[in-house]
Amino acid sequence: MKDIQNERDYRNMAINKVGIKELKYPVTVLDRSQGEQHTVASINMYVDLPHEYKGTHMSRFVELLHFFRPVISLKTFSNILNQMKQHLNAASAHIEVTFPYFIEKSAPVTGAKGLMDYACRLIGSVHPGSKIDLVSEVIVPISSVCPCSKEISDAGAHNQRGRVNLRTRFKKFIWLEDMIGIVERSASCDVFSVLKRSDEKFITEKGYANPKFVEDIVRDIALELKADKNITWFAVEVENFESIHNHNAYAFITSGEPPRILPES
Amino acid sequence: MKDIQNERDYRNMAINKVGIKELKYPVTVLDRSQGEQHTVASINMYVDLPHEYKGTHMSRFVELLHFFRPVISLKTFSNILNQMKQHLNAASAHIEVTFPYFIEKSAPVTGAKGLMDYACRLIGSVHPGSKIDLVSEVIVPISSVCPCSKEISDAGAHNQRGRVNLRTRFKKFIWLEDMIGIVERSASCDVFSVLKRSDEKFITEKGYANPKFVEDIVRDIALELKADKNITWFAVEVENFESIHNHNAYAFITSGEPPRILPES
Amino acid sequence: MKDIQNERDYRNMAINKVGIKELKYPVTVLDRSQGEQHTVASINMYVDLPHEYKGTHMSRFVELLHFFRPVISLKTFSNILNQMKQHLNAASAHIEVTFPYFIEKSAPVTGAKGLMDYACRLIGSVHPGSKIDLVSEVIVPISSVCPCSKEISDAGAHNQRGRVNLRTRFKKFIWLEDMIGIVERSASCDVFSVLKRSDEKFITEKGYANPKFVEDIVRDIALELKADKNITWFAVEVENFESIHNHNAYAFITSGEPPRILPES
Amino acid sequence: MKDIQNERDYRNMAINKVGIKELKYPVTVLDRSQGEQHTVASINMYVDLPHEYKGTHMSRFVELLHFFRPVISLKTFSNILNQMKQHLNAASAHIEVTFPYFIEKSAPVTGAKGLMDYACRLIGSVHPGSKIDLVSEVIVPISSVCPCSKEISDAGAHNQRGRVNLRTRFKKFIWLEDMIGIVERSASCDVFSVLKRSDEKFITEKGYANPKFVEDIVRDIALELKADKNITWFAVEVENFESIHNHNAYAFITSGEPPRILPES
Repeated sequence: MKDIQNERDYRNMAINKVGIKELKYPVTVLDRSQGEQHTVASINMYVDLPHEYKGTHMSRFVELLHFFRPVISLKTFSNILNQMKQHLNAASAHIEVTFPYFIEKSAPVTGAKGLMDYACRLIGSVHPGSKIDLVSEVIVPISSVCPCSKEISDAGAHNQRGRVNLRTRFKKFIWLEDMIGIVERSASCDVFSVLKRSDEKFITEKGYANPKFVEDIVRDIALELKADKNITWFAVEVENFESIHNHNAYAFITSGEPPRILPES
Repeated sequence: MKDIQNERDYRNMAINKVGIKELKYPVTVLDRSQGEQHTVASINMYVDLPHEYKGTHMSRFVELLHFFRPVISLKTFSNILNQMKQHLNAASAHIEVTFPYFIEKSAPVTGAKGLMDYACRLIGSVHPGSKIDLVSEVIVPISSVCPCSKEISDAGAHNQRGRVNLRTRFKKFIWLEDMIGIVERSASCDVFSVLKRSDEKFITEKGYANPKFVEDIVRDIALELKADKNITWFAVEVENFESIHNHNAYAFITSGEPPRILPES
Repeated sequence: MKDIQNERDYRNMAINKVGIKELKYPVTVLDRSQGEQHTVASINMYVDLPHEYKGTHMSRFVELLHFFRPVISLKTFSNILNQMKQHLNAASAHIEVTFPYFIEKSAPVTGAKGLMDYACRLIGSVHPGSKIDLVSEVIVPISSVCPCSKEISDAGAHNQRGRVNLRTRFKKFIWLEDMIGIVERSASCDVFSVLKRSDEKFITEKGYANPKFVEDIVRDIALELKADKNITWFAVEVENFESIHNHNAYAFITSGEPPRILPES
Repeated sequence: MKDIQNERDYRNMAINKVGIKELKYPVTVLDRSQGEQHTVASINMYVDLPHEYKGTHMSRFVELLHFFRPVISLKTFSNILNQMKQHLNAASAHIEVTFPYFIEKSAPVTGAKGLMDYACRLIGSVHPGSKIDLVSEVIVPISSVCPCSKEISDAGAHNQRGRVNLRTRFKKFIWLEDMIGIVERSASCDVFSVLKRSDEKFITEKGYANPKFVEDIVRDIALELKADKNITWFAVEVENFESIHNHNAYAFITSGEPPRILPES
């Protein structure tokens, strides 16, 4: 049976990335307190394609993923990426694994337990002549109280749910739990799945005592990351679903180059 | 050229609805203060298909829409639905037109003007032996302040953006503006696109003086609708993006039959 | 500490549904071949609220869910719903659990194994004076080949990915696998996560030999469901992401009352 | 009334971007054949914030937008960005305007007219010491027929709807219509809103005669862009909603630096 993909291409145009996108798969990820955690991921896997080949072999990505599924982690990405390069005859390889991650949290006064969900992503790349590039991303829901509203109003202050997207590069392995902790400490207050009335009183008063703009939150996270010798790069976005508007407030700091204006995808 | 759709079908199975879904089209809708408003819609159009026909003719839906585009409104739905029945040889017809709608609002103290966006939907159906059935739907962003949090806390109260989905049937034409007004009056406070500092003070204090659960908001809207002789049916949902949780609070009242457990789509 | 929710309400307006929406939680569901399967759900839980109460106690929903988490299934819904009624002092209760579900499928020629994802939902309701009402829903990706395009064209036929939403009520417990099987048998061809070249040849030829409109697919599914004595009600939607348009083709059949025009959402 | 935002900040941490996100607003954009087109946009506007200021003044973004609304275009971005810098006391400014754009297309045989929708985005940035940076983005739905499936199968070939995301930088103003044209010419076939039977025959045969992998489409677009002296940079993504899988095939080529592994937002 003819292998069209393997034919020679004459357009002289290499492809930066080719592969599969939005494959849903159950995976097991590392969990600091439980050892491991079952979750469900959306996965993108790409390799480069040299100019002389007509196409890549898409089924091999899924076969590799099916094989590696039990051990998805930053610690095994190096192996997966090398297998991708080898099985797809590629010089570079790229994987993104996005999944909900759950941490048991206790309510601050009653100690009532519930699970909080965080959207997480692990990203790995290898390119010729470079070391493996790993990035860990967490999206953390938070609560923020507006300092301006508090200052100028006779009582109350508008507040809202917000969302922080934190991505890091690092020297040694970093736990999702540690990245989430940095974000939650920097909000007006963190959020919970179960709160009884005495917890709600605590949370309300804590947030009101601790008003923060998106600008404050993004700065406080950036300060903690800058002081952390293990973090070699970070990008942090804070977005508040303003309770007084139907649009959002947004702030962004990166330790690296000011970003080009375009998202890659 | 053979017309497969027109062939006889022998499965003896009529189809309730068949047609096109999620067609994006620019439309003009009625605007109480401007006369009309240009917007962009996502449109579903369906007819029934008797058991003896193999298929419907999908292109005719788009042709009809293209023809009627200048005059999309509850007032013209009767005509569109009749044309759908006629051109598709159908006994019943159904159309849903979903679009963002903008209203100029002035900030409460400074009067600063900006446009607020509301997600709206017009729905029309005709069935044999029944009068045309029209429904108007608005999704209105609101602000809500938690009465429990205010009561039990020494200072402050958690609040958040919320979203109200209101659908009505009516005797005489009803303006989107009137439906939006009912919702905005029933929230702790309505939301704005432009607010200067003196407006923000006003809004914060108004909301804090007017704390409401989702239960309060849904009831106050329902009470106003019940008292309105023009409204023959309503369904109202309130959903708060709780600032202390990563899940939402929800309440629902309908004037009609308690809903079956299943959404139609 | 004052319990505002428990206070008397004087508006004389009962609430059909009140509770929590879009709570993300890890759950374990029944799996026909593995016994059980770990997945991640988005959960809605509602009760009614009699007119005399000001509010419900939202935290109790999450506490109940946290307690029942290991055993989410149609078989345990009766117990969960009764606990909801009891802990929330309600007459009726409603739960919706939506989750991705995975089934191992072998490619049709090579037998290569991969996991296919299906979006599933379990819904349960209890109302005074009625038996528990259970609904099972699956969303199944399919492939469809257009009969008209095949008939009129000298070669080829446009085809596309589609999506079938099937919901059923039943006498005895029904497996998600059985509902998915009915849908996959009725498509031009089912879809796979891993296909080698000989599989792709098989799939292409099978689909081309088996062209079906959305009308054909929805009818063939409805016929099989009608013949199944265990199914007491169904609603089936087929939606094709037409490869020649940027809008979708759609067909819907229900065994029950022709649906009212409005989704409950 | 105190201006908290204007207060001195002592954390010594400048913010790369701060502003508003996902503001919905009606806008008028340039239309090559009509002069202008009314549409509805989702808008992000950001400036930098020097380390010594506590916050930015979010309401000024909306005021500026409200003022400039009639003339949103790449041609007026320079003016908007300068006003943003001036009114927000910033050194750099950034705007993204995302909107559906409609072009009338005639069916290839019958000439039946309908409107096709394209998701477009205009992006502008100014930074100290650099010229204004403008990017134009279009997302174009296409049809693709698989060359491998055609080659190995006795009849038929799987095909599907796909989506191409093309972003360009340029010397002289570039029309959205021209970017869309480049993409549509490179697909197996372009897609339409209205097709009669003779058109469907034409489309089916054209696609079948012109099979293309995502790799072929991304290369053919890249080749045409490389040959265009007006294009100074491009990034093109092709994503096929494979009709034989529930995941997508993907390919990406950029004329610039191989992208860093992380999207900016």
